[in-house]
Amino acid sequence: GVNPTRLLERIVSLGACGALPDGGVSRLALTDADAQGRAELLRQMRELDMEIRIDPIGNIFGIHAGVEDAVVMMGSHIDTVSTGGLYDGALGVIAGLEVVACLKDEGIRPRHPVVVAAFTNEEGARYAPDMLGSLVYSGAMDVDDAYRITGCDGSVLGEELRRIGHCGTQSGPRNIHAYVELHIEQGPVLEDQGLNIGIVTGVQGISWTEVTVEGRSAHAGTTPARLRHDAGLAAAYITMGLSDMVAAMGPAQLATVGALTLTPNLVNVVASRAVMTVDLRNPDNTALCAAEAMLAKLMGEAKARYGVNVSHRTLARFEPVPFTPALVDTIEATACQMGLSCMRLYSGAGHDAQMIAPVAPAAMIFVPSVAGISHNIREYTHPDDIMNGANLLLRVVTDQAGL
Amino acid sequence: GVNPTRLLERIVSLGACGALPDGGVSRLALTDADAQGRAELLRQMRELDMEIRIDPIGNIFGIHAGVEDAVVMMGSHIDTVSTGGLYDGALGVIAGLEVVACLKDEGIRPRHPVVVAAFTNEEGARYAPDMLGSLVYSGAMDVDDAYRITGCDGSVLGEELRRIGHCGTQSGPRNIHAYVELHIEQGPVLEDQGLNIGIVTGVQGISWTEVTVEGRSAHAGTTPARLRHDAGLAAAYITMGLSDMVAAMGPAQLATVGALTLTPNLVNVVASRAVMTVDLRNPDNTALCAAEAMLAKLMGEAKARYGVNVSHRTLARFEPVPFTPALVDTIEATACQMGLSCMRLYSGAGHDAQMIAPVAPAAMIFVPSVAGISHNIREYTHPDDIMNGANLLLRVVTDQAGL
Ligand SMILES: NC(=O)NCCC(=O)O
Ligand SMILES: NC(=O)NCCC(=O)O
Repeated sequence: GVNPTRLLERIVSLGACGALPDGGVSRLALTDADAQGRAELLRQMRELDMEIRIDPIGNIFGIHAGVEDAVVMMGSHIDTVSTGGLYDGALGVIAGLEVVACLKDEGIRPRHPVVVAAFTNEEGARYAPDMLGSLVYSGAMDVDDAYRITGCDGSVLGEELRRIGHCGTQSGPRNIHAYVELHIEQGPVLEDQGLNIGIVTGVQGISWTEVTVEGRSAHAGTTPARLRHDAGLAAAYITMGLSDMVAAMGPAQLATVGALTLTPNLVNVVASRAVMTVDLRNPDNTALCAAEAMLAKLMGEAKARYGVNVSHRTLARFEPVPFTPALVDTIEATACQMGLSCMRLYSGAGHDAQMIAPVAPAAMIFVPSVAGISHNIREYTHPDDIMNGANLLLRVVTDQAGL
Repeated sequence: GVNPTRLLERIVSLGACGALPDGGVSRLALTDADAQGRAELLRQMRELDMEIRIDPIGNIFGIHAGVEDAVVMMGSHIDTVSTGGLYDGALGVIAGLEVVACLKDEGIRPRHPVVVAAFTNEEGARYAPDMLGSLVYSGAMDVDDAYRITGCDGSVLGEELRRIGHCGTQSGPRNIHAYVELHIEQGPVLEDQGLNIGIVTGVQGISWTEVTVEGRSAHAGTTPARLRHDAGLAAAYITMGLSDMVAAMGPAQLATVGALTLTPNLVNVVASRAVMTVDLRNPDNTALCAAEAMLAKLMGEAKARYGVNVSHRTLARFEPVPFTPALVDTIEATACQMGLSCMRLYSGAGHDAQMIAPVAPAAMIFVPSVAGISHNIREYTHPDDIMNGANLLLRVVTDQAGL
């Protein structure tokens, strides 16, 4: 089985990179903190004598050699949001290293090489879309298009990738026998149900839109309400409309306005411009399309009501992704054999596994998140749960890799 | 009469300080651009052989000597919002210099010294409250309290004042015979009515509040709506509630949410914090108090509906200020004698004159703003209107100063 001390120590060492004063981490993709995290990851991989490859989008692959071409891949990401915890992403990568450490302990050279991948910019918090590194790796996005993406801070992805020295020239493994990702649930279901493990059957659909409202700056003390073109008020209208939509569509539909920036952003000036993000999610693509139609309707209403111009661009759009049924079944059976209590569930968060699923067998294992809290510095998963997840990962991967 | 070319050239020279690429100016108080504007103003005052005094809050006084102690003061401000025009504030100061130039042309040493004042941070866009320099000058705010004010960009007023070298050691004139401020209307009324001049009877009440909403950062894809503590949604709720209030209270009540900042401001993170400004105005103080009560009610509702904490602090609170009736009458009579069409009106914007009014006779002259646009780079006032206003100012001031 996995070594708890060794596994937790690795998590803590990685968590020191970009650590925040009150706990948690900020390791936005391709920032200096991410570069530190990457250096720490490479150090840990070298310690395990893994062959390291970095591809042109900065995905890091650590390879424990086998005899065949097709690899068994574990993976996730080490970038975080700016109010992130120690486990989101990091767990899947670090647990992968622990699996390799176990294979080494026992002197096992598996049939299929065992690979640990850390994909670039999974969070999408700095550069949209999310899951960008795995998207490029899977061939669904051109790397040159990725290089041109402008981040929420105005930085350009390709420049930042080169700046931190992670624009690699190698290719990741091309032939994937199976991809298994261990991740914290980031939601409240497993804890609510008192279960050890979530068997993830798929990921819900994700739709990200950036909405830009153009109004007219005006004096707050002299401009009558009827003569205003208030971009901030139009943004508030859209925000409230989405909240009403969620109430009407029921709990399967989520809508979040996480980012909003007003210009000139001064107390006595009616805002001339508002740029806001809208994150819509639903496990059902038809319902998600209906939510997108509602957003379009709200943009039209805002335009008419507030005399503003409203434009938008899609930052990310992923349909719901089902994981590979046979691999899901195998993971569930293995968990049962190990005496772990589990249930099948759908993922609310996007994951790298969903980008691998169209090109290779892929599935995921969830472990509970305390109070369902994630993207928050108080994100936490109990060591027992981490061990359960890592041991399940070890068993599934050794089974898949073959002796 | 005033010299049009000389007056317009002075406006253009000042407008070059902090000029924006697409027109207009950004000369936020005590920034480098403001420092450039102040240097240009001092240059123009020296050219007119005026005695210059800078007081501890950075107010600049240019004095054209007379024989008595009590002064006739003209004044306004040269700071702007970050999307400002060339006329808001600048006109009152520059027209004052033109009045002095006319006195010099005619070799007049008036009975009362004629003073041109440029008050610090009138806009309030960088440091709240607005009209801060005239407020301190009038004795209604302690200068040491003013030094400690933190600006919207995190800067501290006293440090910035020292940094640009405008923390003076002199006192402004203590004894004011009359204060007359020429300003652009910044609203649409005079243009609508086809009139030359607005005789300003007072300034409406101004209430500025900073509202801070504390929620909880959470994952946008995994956190059910009912478990969220969404600071951004609560801010949108308050914003819409204020807009509904304005619709219910009628056109005399204004409400503006000009500034709003979300934390962490990322697409897939429910906002943990929102800081917003609320600018409420009404010519009737009782009605303004009712609007403030409605804001308090909305904050309470937001707290209950969204499970957030809501705190607030007052950034500025000024009751409606009536100008000195005798001086208002004099200005109106003079305008009529000069054949200028005029009407009495109330000011929607705050002005330095309102801080002088409690301590000395004070009144204002408005000239039309094209389309009522202000706090916008397209702010414009026709040269003819500028000349009408400056000539009326010249006549009123020479009458008040005495020969
Ligand atoms: N796992 C995770 O937090 N992914 C970030 C992408 C998203 O779901 O917003
Ligand atoms: N005149 C002017 O724009 N004053 C700024 C203060 C305010 O009214 O907001």
